Amino acid sequence: MLLDAPTVDQSLHAAGYRRVDPQEAHLRVDDLGATRGDGVFETVGVFAGRPVQLQPHIRRLQHSAGILDLPDIRAEVWQEAILAAIDAAGGGDLSVKAVLTRGVEGTGSATGWVLAFPAPDSQRARREGLDVVTLSRGYASDIAQTSPWLLQGAKTTSYAVHMAALREARRRGAEDVIFTSTDSFVLEGPTSTVVLRAGNELITPATDQGILACTTQELLFQFAADRGIAAVARPVPVQELRSADLVWLCSSVRLCAPVRAIDGRSLPLDTELAQDFLTYAHREG
Amino acid sequence: MLLDAPTVDQSLHAAGYRRVDPQEAHLRVDDLGATRGDGVFETVGVFAGRPVQLQPHIRRLQHSAGILDLPDIRAEVWQEAILAAIDAAGGGDLSVKAVLTRGVEGTGSATGWVLAFPAPDSQRARREGLDVVTLSRGYASDIAQTSPWLLQGAKTTSYAVHMAALREARRRGAEDVIFTSTDSFVLEGPTSTVVLRAGNELITPATDQGILACTTQELLFQFAADRGIAAVARPVPVQELRSADLVWLCSSVRLCAPVRAIDGRSLPLDTELAQDFLTYAHREG
Repeated sequence: MLLDAPTVDQSLHAAGYRRVDPQEAHLRVDDLGATRGDGVFETVGVFAGRPVQLQPHIRRLQHSAGILDLPDIRAEVWQEAILAAIDAAGGGDLSVKAVLTRGVEGTGSATGWVLAFPAPDSQRARREGLDVVTLSRGYASDIAQTSPWLLQGAKTTSYAVHMAALREARRRGAEDVIFTSTDSFVLEGPTSTVVLRAGNELITPATDQGILACTTQELLFQFAADRGIAAVARPVPVQELRSADLVWLCSSVRLCAPVRAIDGRSLPLDTELAQDFLTYAHREG
Repeated sequence: MLLDAPTVDQSLHAAGYRRVDPQEAHLRVDDLGATRGDGVFETVGVFAGRPVQLQPHIRRLQHSAGILDLPDIRAEVWQEAILAAIDAAGGGDLSVKAVLTRGVEGTGSATGWVLAFPAPDSQRARREGLDVVTLSRGYASDIAQTSPWLLQGAKTTSYAVHMAALREARRRGAEDVIFTSTDSFVLEGPTSTVVLRAGNELITPATDQGILACTTQELLFQFAADRGIAAVARPVPVQELRSADLVWLCSSVRLCAPVRAIDGRSLPLDTELAQDFLTYAHREG
């Protein structure tokens, strides 16, 4: 779906979006999304045709747009376009990408699109767990407060570093990454949020450390609350990661995948939560 | 110009590039350049129809591609496409952008294009100088050695932070930025290289500090050598920036623009070098 009116400064005609063939070209080569990675995005998980945490995703898209000084989004157009994309894809298990860029250079008019595609199979990751390496993100944990122009905490399309970190993980024989700060706090994965269990408590790094609020982790904490499990967001020193009972990486399509090894050191593997949460997310998301 | 064979793994038919209308769409919405800022680029300055430092630009594009684990580029196709773009634009003073992305997700086939457009007028910047603010880049100066996955030293299309830094400069009433490291070294501008003059020496920050090698600064140092002016690349502590006799920001299209104020503190302004170098670059570049 291409959005004709992704932001409130663009006048709305008809639905504000239209269906196009994704195999054809729809972006100009001077779109700042393509030349400068100057945009924001969301990836929405869809299970049996139902998007999980759709409203939190749209709110986070608006939040990211705000950090980049992009115009306010037309939330209702994005919502309808996402639902239409799911419909057009015939439902089922999907990954839906929603992208807003600063648009063609010089026009001041943002570009927006929504693309639904079949969700990659995450069964193996959820059942067998992930081999993970820790990599430095190069920033101190207070970076969002001291240097807001570094855009930490916004989900921008400038993701080359995130992709390079995943390639580095593969070079080291692993599958995923947990970024750490220069002052030795746990941050996040390149495309996921870290949750650990210590005793009877779930813990996730607080989002004031220049990391993304996670729509899936929000849902996981709601799931935990329903089961009387305590759950907190607070700074997590790296040594806590090493002493945790269990660790998960949470994201919108893979949901919560257990970590079976960090930097080559094995962790206890509990796939039960991953499976229970999968059922919960299908029902409550 | 769209490149049909931007990298050596793609088979070459005919010239390997073709002319298209830049007002039309040529990129798919699932190109990793658009969704992940997963690409590299160069901006070549063209004066009176002649590209300045074309070979160094093409070598740097290859260098950046290597850091991102992209396939090797077809240097000759890029060169011909850039020359053809200049020709198609009718020569004159141009800015030519050459972009290589990882291509449409799942295809493993890179996307490349070259776009020439009229150079923005840089006369005012060269004559009157620039108001500049220093902003932290958030990284230590040894980041390229300790954390290569952060891609510092590659000219990637993940430039959202660079654009945000320029917006922050404007918020502070300035026009440009000099990034500094967390260990208090001068790094580079978001789209330029810093050169300072202390006594009879030109100094630029060494490129092993996670910053880009600058094709324009290379030419400036050649210009200095022709005039018997010493020129060195070495780490530059921030206090040297504050005590420098003169400071310039060098880039491919604006060339060397003098800095007239840093963080609100005025600097001596020598526009003579900027103008002399302009003449030199037109002739020797």
